[in-house]
Amino acid sequence: MTFAASRRLPIPADFAPPPSARLRRAWDEADRAALPSRLGHLRARLAESGVDAYFGLRREEIRYLTGVNLGEGEEKMAGNSGRFLVSGDTVVVLADSRYTLQARHEAPDARLEAVTNDLPAHWAALCAAIGARRVAVPAADISHALWGELAAAAPDVELVPAGAWVDEHRAVKEPAEVERIAAACAVADRALATLLPDIHPGLTEAALAWRLETLMREGGAEALAFDVAALAGPQAALPHGSPGERRVRAGQVLLFDFGAQVAGYRSDMTRTLFVGEPRPRDLAVYELVARAQAASIAYLEASLEAGTAPNGRAADAAARDVISAAGHGEHFGHGTGHGIGLATHEVPSLSRVASEAPLPSPTVFSVEPGVYLDGRMGVRIEDLVLLDIAARRAERLTRFPRDVLVVG
Amino acid sequence: MTFAASRRLPIPADFAPPPSARLRRAWDEADRAALPSRLGHLRARLAESGVDAYFGLRREEIRYLTGVNLGEGEEKMAGNSGRFLVSGDTVVVLADSRYTLQARHEAPDARLEAVTNDLPAHWAALCAAIGARRVAVPAADISHALWGELAAAAPDVELVPAGAWVDEHRAVKEPAEVERIAAACAVADRALATLLPDIHPGLTEAALAWRLETLMREGGAEALAFDVAALAGPQAALPHGSPGERRVRAGQVLLFDFGAQVAGYRSDMTRTLFVGEPRPRDLAVYELVARAQAASIAYLEASLEAGTAPNGRAADAAARDVISAAGHGEHFGHGTGHGIGLATHEVPSLSRVASEAPLPSPTVFSVEPGVYLDGRMGVRIEDLVLLDIAARRAERLTRFPRDVLVVG
Repeated sequence: MTFAASRRLPIPADFAPPPSARLRRAWDEADRAALPSRLGHLRARLAESGVDAYFGLRREEIRYLTGVNLGEGEEKMAGNSGRFLVSGDTVVVLADSRYTLQARHEAPDARLEAVTNDLPAHWAALCAAIGARRVAVPAADISHALWGELAAAAPDVELVPAGAWVDEHRAVKEPAEVERIAAACAVADRALATLLPDIHPGLTEAALAWRLETLMREGGAEALAFDVAALAGPQAALPHGSPGERRVRAGQVLLFDFGAQVAGYRSDMTRTLFVGEPRPRDLAVYELVARAQAASIAYLEASLEAGTAPNGRAADAAARDVISAAGHGEHFGHGTGHGIGLATHEVPSLSRVASEAPLPSPTVFSVEPGVYLDGRMGVRIEDLVLLDIAARRAERLTRFPRDVLVVG
Repeated sequence: MTFAASRRLPIPADFAPPPSARLRRAWDEADRAALPSRLGHLRARLAESGVDAYFGLRREEIRYLTGVNLGEGEEKMAGNSGRFLVSGDTVVVLADSRYTLQARHEAPDARLEAVTNDLPAHWAALCAAIGARRVAVPAADISHALWGELAAAAPDVELVPAGAWVDEHRAVKEPAEVERIAAACAVADRALATLLPDIHPGLTEAALAWRLETLMREGGAEALAFDVAALAGPQAALPHGSPGERRVRAGQVLLFDFGAQVAGYRSDMTRTLFVGEPRPRDLAVYELVARAQAASIAYLEASLEAGTAPNGRAADAAARDVISAAGHGEHFGHGTGHGIGLATHEVPSLSRVASEAPLPSPTVFSVEPGVYLDGRMGVRIEDLVLLDIAARRAERLTRFPRDVLVVG
């Protein structure tokens, strides 16, 4: 591996074009076809747990199990609309008058129930109509207030705290889900490649972030996966940070953390560029982080080759050990990676406290070690990786190169 | 009031320009200056309720009471970062390593505590450090799971369900809050005025929505208040709906529902335009909705003149009665308005089930009646209104005209 500064910058044509309308229709069709299997998996959990129904409230679960598509943050304004009950033989979707037509269109096989803000008033009848006496409710998704109101509204209906049942199943990705995540990666890859020649000292972080957003939104993304981070020089030492009116200067690093949403599925990538010739000490940090990232992926590959199932704690350790051995352990405070799909952050986790059980498969997660030097600079390199244990594949879905890139 | 179709379209210069950097600094300063009063109000509530501290979790409350600024949806990735405790003399802000520098900068007077995902493990010590034995927690903001974990982690600390204490105080707007909402209104007004000459049959709803978003983001908004709705013809009959690849046709109505965020504060407006000459029956619906909106505002003005405090239920009824009298009562399914500020939807509410207690003051809310004819068309007209009872003012902050506008 050589990290000599490169002036051969990637170009947009290096990456896949945005998905065609035909491909988008095929994904819609794949979702419809997958619905019985997704519901079947949940129903098996219900049966195992001796409960009659599941009450789902989260945006991602609404989309995954009913087809109803809410935007990020829309659930705050949608009230109870989209929330759903799954019993052994029925799916019930709640919708107030604003959402009736949408729910009818997107969840044609579900029974719609008109509910505004008065869910507790309807709760007993809703449960009775599907014969549910014990209802599993994901306790991390429902407010303490609503839990209490539902419990009081129907004393005969037992609420059973459910764990991350749907999250765990969502972590195992269907082929059409992986395709959409890969498409979102390509939209982000192309956007950054398009931006590269336009990066010059004197531009503000905020202007660069907006330009990158525009390139994604006009290049196939219906939304962002999250707000673009564009952080120059010392700002890059903030593992989280918002772009500001600071102007990029020659000699600085420039960190972009960004992702696209394509047909509901998301990407997430980070690249740290050099504006002008890299300083040797900054280059050394870059090379260290790149080696750490490569080590984590090498661990996944080695596990597959040895026929042992990789786990999230060891995948974190593989990257962390490289950084710690170089004396920068304390400058890498966050975990190495997170699952991604309909949400930007989901299971599985790659971290010091992650499970040592085998990772789900096939699944997609980020591998994103970083080194942050307060007041000076920071480097993070983040790719999405598809892990498919049965197929013995650990493949980067992010195609943008990880070479040292000099811009400006 | 005359509703003859107008060809004198508003132009950008009709509306206030984006706020200057100086004004933005003044707003930052006003927030810092207001913090003691905001905290004092909450502390009075704590004392009245006999509790020692308040645990806040929601994005808007974090910003309002600590200064820490999270983006929409960011709380899902921030974990416990930004969550805070307020006791009689201390503000404690939780932050993991990603947020430490930001929290130190934005909440310089707060005590920072390093907490990652392990809040329950820290809970007893956090409460002990501020001498809190009874802690009020807004039950609508905390998950049932976390409530249970905190209760189990510190059996000596009593969790007391708190109502919408901070929401009620946030409904009463400070002058610098009203200024920012008005600035967000002006950004949206100007954006739509800029878009008008570019609207032509054949453009897609999605293209128009993206163009309007771009005009707001490049015209002073750091974010949108919510995703732009651009709905043509029959689609406008969906009180909620997402723009699609449908092309706008001559003879259709074209509904835009959109808002900007400026220095944290949001706007929300809806205009229904006519693409080509209006059909008389569509014009009649438009005139009805405009009269209904005017009636609600006239009710507010009449109350102020009579020296009686207006209430949200009557403000809804004033608009609804006009629509019902015309035989369209069943085509107006939603409420007449909602408060707005750091969040797009907040208290107070103008609806059939709203309180008959006096509205808060000064406050800002939307007035947005609509008539939706399934499969045919819909009309909504939405303005933000500042109500200041002491000053006897009910003033539209949305300046964009409500005349019949013909575009294309």
